[in-house]
Amino acid sequence: MDHGSSSSTNPASHAAPQLCGVTVPQGFTAAATTAGIKPSGKPDMALLVNEGPLYTAAAMFTKNRVVASPVKVTGQNNNGTFRAVVINAGNANACNGAQGDRDATAMAEHVAESLSISPQDVAVCSTGLIGDLLPMDKVHAGVEALVPSLSSEPQAGHAAARAIMTTDTVDKQAVYHGDGWSIGAMGKGVGMMAPSLATMLVFLTTDAVMSDATDLARALGASTASTFDCIDVDGSTSTNDTVILMASGASGVTPDAEEFARAVHQVCLDLTMQLQADAEGVTKRVAITVRGAADDDQAKIAARVIGRDNLFKCAMFGSDPNWGRVLAAVGMAPVDMDPEAIDVSFNGNPVCVNSTGAPGARQVDLSGVDIAVDVDLGVGRGQATVWTTDLSHSYVEINSAYSS
Amino acid sequence: MDHGSSSSTNPASHAAPQLCGVTVPQGFTAAATTAGIKPSGKPDMALLVNEGPLYTAAAMFTKNRVVASPVKVTGQNNNGTFRAVVINAGNANACNGAQGDRDATAMAEHVAESLSISPQDVAVCSTGLIGDLLPMDKVHAGVEALVPSLSSEPQAGHAAARAIMTTDTVDKQAVYHGDGWSIGAMGKGVGMMAPSLATMLVFLTTDAVMSDATDLARALGASTASTFDCIDVDGSTSTNDTVILMASGASGVTPDAEEFARAVHQVCLDLTMQLQADAEGVTKRVAITVRGAADDDQAKIAARVIGRDNLFKCAMFGSDPNWGRVLAAVGMAPVDMDPEAIDVSFNGNPVCVNSTGAPGARQVDLSGVDIAVDVDLGVGRGQATVWTTDLSHSYVEINSAYSS
Repeated sequence: MDHGSSSSTNPASHAAPQLCGVTVPQGFTAAATTAGIKPSGKPDMALLVNEGPLYTAAAMFTKNRVVASPVKVTGQNNNGTFRAVVINAGNANACNGAQGDRDATAMAEHVAESLSISPQDVAVCSTGLIGDLLPMDKVHAGVEALVPSLSSEPQAGHAAARAIMTTDTVDKQAVYHGDGWSIGAMGKGVGMMAPSLATMLVFLTTDAVMSDATDLARALGASTASTFDCIDVDGSTSTNDTVILMASGASGVTPDAEEFARAVHQVCLDLTMQLQADAEGVTKRVAITVRGAADDDQAKIAARVIGRDNLFKCAMFGSDPNWGRVLAAVGMAPVDMDPEAIDVSFNGNPVCVNSTGAPGARQVDLSGVDIAVDVDLGVGRGQATVWTTDLSHSYVEINSAYSS
Repeated sequence: MDHGSSSSTNPASHAAPQLCGVTVPQGFTAAATTAGIKPSGKPDMALLVNEGPLYTAAAMFTKNRVVASPVKVTGQNNNGTFRAVVINAGNANACNGAQGDRDATAMAEHVAESLSISPQDVAVCSTGLIGDLLPMDKVHAGVEALVPSLSSEPQAGHAAARAIMTTDTVDKQAVYHGDGWSIGAMGKGVGMMAPSLATMLVFLTTDAVMSDATDLARALGASTASTFDCIDVDGSTSTNDTVILMASGASGVTPDAEEFARAVHQVCLDLTMQLQADAEGVTKRVAITVRGAADDDQAKIAARVIGRDNLFKCAMFGSDPNWGRVLAAVGMAPVDMDPEAIDVSFNGNPVCVNSTGAPGARQVDLSGVDIAVDVDLGVGRGQATVWTTDLSHSYVEINSAYSS
């Protein structure tokens, strides 16, 4: 049973955007500033502080072996407690060698000193171009500007959500209201749990009394596996992806463990849908559900293989019910399947039955923005959904002219 | 030591295109016709016949689990002997169920009957749209037209090379002249050994005396592993890919085994370069060489991961020396690497040394058509090259409007 309710800043679904964001839960303050890192002159640094009384935290990072300096520093500090997160956009501080590591550490130390906390309790996140050194004079001036403007007002959370954007066109925020407690969240990014360069950063706050970091980590891990980890815009994986959940305990309420886990999942799913809707160059939101797989993991692998196939993605862009590309793609997935018994439907219309075209398959209307692709591998009960987008001209445009 | 010489129809390299193609070796005849399968009204069926005295053959097929009916039929017939190959373009005869299998079998049987040979000695290949039944009346009329027009003239080989094209913009042919013997070849396709839908079909003929099919298979397998299997335009894999090598023995010359293997490789590499140059939407030819890997296989895996990364491919389209995308891509490859010691160069210019940007990296000129990307993983002596292309607007255009 769901005691809570969620809303988001997604234009399609929100009712009260002013109630969204990381400062909705008690015990959190946020701030944003324009440090001058983004060439555009838009806000580019944010600070999020857990004011306590608890400082429990869990974090998850990119699976890429090439990781950015802030991921290294935050990973070293990831021992169940974070009191602050400092974020910059416009520069990923990735592939900058030892100087990059020193700069990320310096960011944490500067924030720690300003807040009179330990540098080990500060998380650092960066997003933007890979391979340029951070302009540390601007970063330090940014930290100086952020600390005195920390606020628990909703506006502070909104400003932080905007400051962490890169190629995002809208900010992404979400909230869950429990009985006397809540979860707030902000995120940025334009791809899978791990678009290359684009970077997914997600920050969740809660005032629930969660004193055991293991519980937070469990709830976060279970949620990301079926939400952020199931977005796959381009198969690319960032050096910087980070998801952090912080609990202040300021509500004094200890939620039921199951409800808390469900609430975290709900907020993650809400942000996931917002990330998909704002993916680079998106003109179609494509949900690929694979069922009839040997198990859920195999279903996810197969759905991901389809979601990464450029020919399939181009067909979606063209509103083309070219189901043959689904079969050609899934045939390459390293999972169990019956190649002669695969079923495919588009938006509920069977287009392929037992690996053979269904009558009327070429006439299925895919002109809408949302396309549901359902694939049955015909071997078991495993099921998973991956959310992807089409491959459009504007994806190519955005990504062929990023650094230069 | 190379006793032979090769040339091709590639405009950049050919000297004498009239000497190219599958009818250059003695003992082979070919024909082409317009059966009406392609909506464009262009030639769409070809027949290639080994007139003997030997009929030795080797074949390789797509690794996709979803295979087209002609691949099934040809695979069943693949026992070291082929006397004829019948090919249609415009329809892949894939995902057509039992009727598709019957149609592919009927194509082989019709050709066999017309040539008074066994249906088991006929290979069948189809390329085009997946999921539509073959118009068998047109196919049978096509076979009737093909058989009487078989010819050993060079023009017959050229006509066959043109008839098997789909989205190819130029025909692809190659030749190797040994001492008294030769290899001829034609191919079509716009992607890796296995673009989805596009399909790679390659046919090699030789008049060398090669009576053992195992020798042919060994030479062909070794060559494809480092040529066709290293093209990766879009990471997609066709249901129809087929490579067939047939030996007639008509020259009476038995070449040195090593020279023969080298010659097959040379012809395959020639066609590989032609396939890459004509890939869908190509504006850049990108050669990705990974060295310093634990072994050659790991180098190939890493090169392929980079070659499939859409963000990297978009950067190439934009002539953008965004080496960070190379690191982000290779960091996801499931191979051994030292994440802190990766070197990258573009066209011979170091842009990343020890995973850190090199001076002048952003100024490297990638405006030419050919881009060489060199990556050193810093752990061993393994090396491989994968050829890919950029991700361009016209790739999206071509592939978003194929079936409809």
